[in-house]
Amino acid sequence: MDTDTDIEEGINDQRDRASAGDRDYQQPLAAPLIEAAELAKWSFYRAIIAEFVATGLFLYITVSTVIGYKRSQNDSTKNIPGYCGGVGLLGLAWAFGGMIFVLVYNTAGISGGHLNPAVTFALLLARKVTIPRAIMYILAQCSGATCGCWLVKAFEKTYYMVNGGGVNELQHGYGRLTALGAEIIGTFILVYTVLSTTDPKRNARDSHVPVLAPLPIGFAVFMVHLATIPITGTGINPARSFGPAVMYNEKETWNDHWLFWAGPMIGAAGAEFYYEHILRAHLTLYRDHHHITRR
Amino acid sequence: MDTDTDIEEGINDQRDRASAGDRDYQQPLAAPLIEAAELAKWSFYRAIIAEFVATGLFLYITVSTVIGYKRSQNDSTKNIPGYCGGVGLLGLAWAFGGMIFVLVYNTAGISGGHLNPAVTFALLLARKVTIPRAIMYILAQCSGATCGCWLVKAFEKTYYMVNGGGVNELQHGYGRLTALGAEIIGTFILVYTVLSTTDPKRNARDSHVPVLAPLPIGFAVFMVHLATIPITGTGINPARSFGPAVMYNEKETWNDHWLFWAGPMIGAAGAEFYYEHILRAHLTLYRDHHHITRR
Amino acid sequence: MDTDTDIEEGINDQRDRASAGDRDYQQPLAAPLIEAAELAKWSFYRAIIAEFVATGLFLYITVSTVIGYKRSQNDSTKNIPGYCGGVGLLGLAWAFGGMIFVLVYNTAGISGGHLNPAVTFALLLARKVTIPRAIMYILAQCSGATCGCWLVKAFEKTYYMVNGGGVNELQHGYGRLTALGAEIIGTFILVYTVLSTTDPKRNARDSHVPVLAPLPIGFAVFMVHLATIPITGTGINPARSFGPAVMYNEKETWNDHWLFWAGPMIGAAGAEFYYEHILRAHLTLYRDHHHITRR
Amino acid sequence: MDTDTDIEEGINDQRDRASAGDRDYQQPLAAPLIEAAELAKWSFYRAIIAEFVATGLFLYITVSTVIGYKRSQNDSTKNIPGYCGGVGLLGLAWAFGGMIFVLVYNTAGISGGHLNPAVTFALLLARKVTIPRAIMYILAQCSGATCGCWLVKAFEKTYYMVNGGGVNELQHGYGRLTALGAEIIGTFILVYTVLSTTDPKRNARDSHVPVLAPLPIGFAVFMVHLATIPITGTGINPARSFGPAVMYNEKETWNDHWLFWAGPMIGAAGAEFYYEHILRAHLTLYRDHHHITRR
Repeated sequence: MDTDTDIEEGINDQRDRASAGDRDYQQPLAAPLIEAAELAKWSFYRAIIAEFVATGLFLYITVSTVIGYKRSQNDSTKNIPGYCGGVGLLGLAWAFGGMIFVLVYNTAGISGGHLNPAVTFALLLARKVTIPRAIMYILAQCSGATCGCWLVKAFEKTYYMVNGGGVNELQHGYGRLTALGAEIIGTFILVYTVLSTTDPKRNARDSHVPVLAPLPIGFAVFMVHLATIPITGTGINPARSFGPAVMYNEKETWNDHWLFWAGPMIGAAGAEFYYEHILRAHLTLYRDHHHITRR
Repeated sequence: MDTDTDIEEGINDQRDRASAGDRDYQQPLAAPLIEAAELAKWSFYRAIIAEFVATGLFLYITVSTVIGYKRSQNDSTKNIPGYCGGVGLLGLAWAFGGMIFVLVYNTAGISGGHLNPAVTFALLLARKVTIPRAIMYILAQCSGATCGCWLVKAFEKTYYMVNGGGVNELQHGYGRLTALGAEIIGTFILVYTVLSTTDPKRNARDSHVPVLAPLPIGFAVFMVHLATIPITGTGINPARSFGPAVMYNEKETWNDHWLFWAGPMIGAAGAEFYYEHILRAHLTLYRDHHHITRR
Repeated sequence: MDTDTDIEEGINDQRDRASAGDRDYQQPLAAPLIEAAELAKWSFYRAIIAEFVATGLFLYITVSTVIGYKRSQNDSTKNIPGYCGGVGLLGLAWAFGGMIFVLVYNTAGISGGHLNPAVTFALLLARKVTIPRAIMYILAQCSGATCGCWLVKAFEKTYYMVNGGGVNELQHGYGRLTALGAEIIGTFILVYTVLSTTDPKRNARDSHVPVLAPLPIGFAVFMVHLATIPITGTGINPARSFGPAVMYNEKETWNDHWLFWAGPMIGAAGAEFYYEHILRAHLTLYRDHHHITRR
Repeated sequence: MDTDTDIEEGINDQRDRASAGDRDYQQPLAAPLIEAAELAKWSFYRAIIAEFVATGLFLYITVSTVIGYKRSQNDSTKNIPGYCGGVGLLGLAWAFGGMIFVLVYNTAGISGGHLNPAVTFALLLARKVTIPRAIMYILAQCSGATCGCWLVKAFEKTYYMVNGGGVNELQHGYGRLTALGAEIIGTFILVYTVLSTTDPKRNARDSHVPVLAPLPIGFAVFMVHLATIPITGTGINPARSFGPAVMYNEKETWNDHWLFWAGPMIGAAGAEFYYEHILRAHLTLYRDHHHITRR
């Protein structure tokens, strides 16, 4: 029973800050920057495992879909039947958005369902996770993404290498600045949606938002892909960009890789600023006040 | 604390009229036509900012998707591989409907999530917003839409201008009257859905409608696009038509622009009349009675 | 106030039988076959108007989508760019399923959201609506569907007549018996879903089913269209088949029209039998018992 | 009343273990391996009928969609208009995912909505169903799937046999090990989602998960199909693979059939292990403790 209570605390702890449902409205305290107690709980390591596995499954499904789609496109140039036979760009966009919906749903209660270093960064800025948790999540996401791509490469090495390995890169006809801008705004939309749908204030008023939150979050990812696949292939998730780059690893792969870290991080910070300091301006003051009194 | 209470009031105030959830059934009072107190609250300005930003993001995503789709179509005429490689008309329709779902979800608690002058007009007729709020929302929506298109043009100027700039216009083979009719009925469907899903009476009975409302609203937009993209490209939102027209701004752009204001406004008024005076006929009497006694 | 109370009663009355949410589990009484009092209530006529309007909007959107799709297919035979430019069969299926989702959501609280004579027939067999209500609903649905198609024909007469008018007919390569079977099973799936999702017993346990019910109902329609568009174009709704037949009205239009009434009615009766007498066998006994004691 | 109470108990019994909603958090007891009382209840046989019918409808819709899609592909090789006219791979993936959403929604309250021997196997491992129930469910699923395919073959025998009968088989260019891996991981994703969304602990915190669970489950199926249709056609459900193999029954049909049992069963066991022993490690201890004390 003691062990279980400890776990329960771990969950509640995480829930206060990350995403799950406070039934009565209560502004959660800002997470401390570092919290030693957290490191002693199984719930902390379990959350890291969940992030690793879920990001791995995300990359496995999405990169498999990308490779299948590219194969159908290449066949078509030779007038082989099967042209139009792939899932299309629309199917690609669904794969990214739909997997985020499913996996955020599955992991929300365990790790908060970040699956994306830019989301973790925004929630660190929002003081919803501690620094050690943020670092461990990002490492788990990047290594999970790499393992997911390794699976795809192990399953179909030739197709993987011939069809670009699911790598994000600048598309023909667009400049670096455009790509950076597209990544910034795309991530802004995603993180703005994450913050809106998991707002604890909102929970109190419309008490089922935590349950529904994964759907608009998944749709936000779907929408950004529809718009920016032709520009950068759409990153808006540094782990998604990092995994394929490691496994594909041709020289030019890394040339513009910084774009897929800088863009999402800037966009995430922008969304956090907009949400916290414009849309909820006075609430921030209140939280800080509240925080001080309770210490 | 005082400041916070003020904000809370602002929110509740807005919620009574706009869209959020009254737990116990109580017919909200009709909004006054003008309310001076509203102008002194931060929640009023915050709502305007939220409408501006969300409409901007809506146009950025949807017009980017339109340009990407048109490019894929134009390449195909030259038998270049990539033919059928775009997101298709179905992808376009998803972009419009899906973004409305995400953004209404995100802004419902802040501004009511209108994002469309026709919706604001209907809610003014329904006495759910004041005249100053309606005017400010419409200005925010139109300027936000223009900024969203400016972003797309800044990112890919040539493609933007070559591929029609996402402008709504009469498609070949259809007359002005047909286009006007299509805009009227399309907006009727959208506004009828908005009024049905945010009805405070419904809230009381099925208490989670406010949370779910964005999904049928987004789907209504998706459906109308499936049907009328071949006729007018589908406006049903004057801000969506206005922004691209400003940024594209070729001479013929403005010829039929009035259609995309007149149609949606007539459709919105029709839906409001149908909903308020036919489907909820006696309730209207009740509300007016209730209004008088409480003053 | 009196008037309003009357309306409230009308709503509650309808809600007990049709679809909306009883919070505590209570098996509703079987509707009487004929109820004179019903005819004196505004809620009865309002429900008929709502069925008429919603079925009209359903046909307007779906038949417009069909015509747009067929145009894109015909252009493609001449190697004109735009090939692949339509919404595709997948877009067609979405139009039917998505509109049912939106319109059932909008009308559930007013009329129960039938929009389909086969659904009304099943709910009559399930003793959830009276005979006069069933007859009036079916008339409203069929005339609404005809008006919806009239709008499409008025907007684009030539395209409408050239592209088959959205009529359901036996597709090349399939026999009458196959078509009848496909209509029976398709409607079975739809009505089985309607009965499952609006079961008052289920409401009590999972109290938000009435709110969510429109989504699986819409998806059921979507799914059946994916499977049987190549066989009959997919009816599973006699009003949907009747409206286009009236407005297109070529000689062969009516040859197999009976299939689109017989199939759905048999499928609806089968689903009602399966649901009521197999899945809920003992509950039926209970209801009859309960009914007798309360009289 | 006695009969009804018996039924009610049957339902509650099943609900504790299978999927439905416990309002207050209480870890359900592990199901006994064999429970004689269960066999005497109508709810047990009703659940088996529901599994049979639902799996039959699942195969009928999905295999019909596959045949329609393959026909559109074959026509296209002859340059007949209609090329690109099918629902596409994206439509196929929707058919599988969407039907699972609808049917899990419909049967969740009756049988737990397994519809898949791999899901039943995972829930047996998780001690949520008894051994006799698991065996009967799997038999019902396999015979239902066969009947569903028989319907498709009866409706369109030539097309069915010419277009591969909806059979799962290794696609050109992939080895047996890859196929096995793809089936394992695909089923892992599905079963992980099933366990996450129906976790009774989650029910207590976010009380509407049982209602929403079918949506992420359906999406998980949709996602796996997007990724692995090009590899194995996607099984992740031995009943789905078995039914078409029986009705198509050409010699090579059965060569790799074992892959579509072994893969899903391994994947299901893996997901159960991951969920129970890693994500909920301490809770398992707690349950066993709790179980012992209550006996």
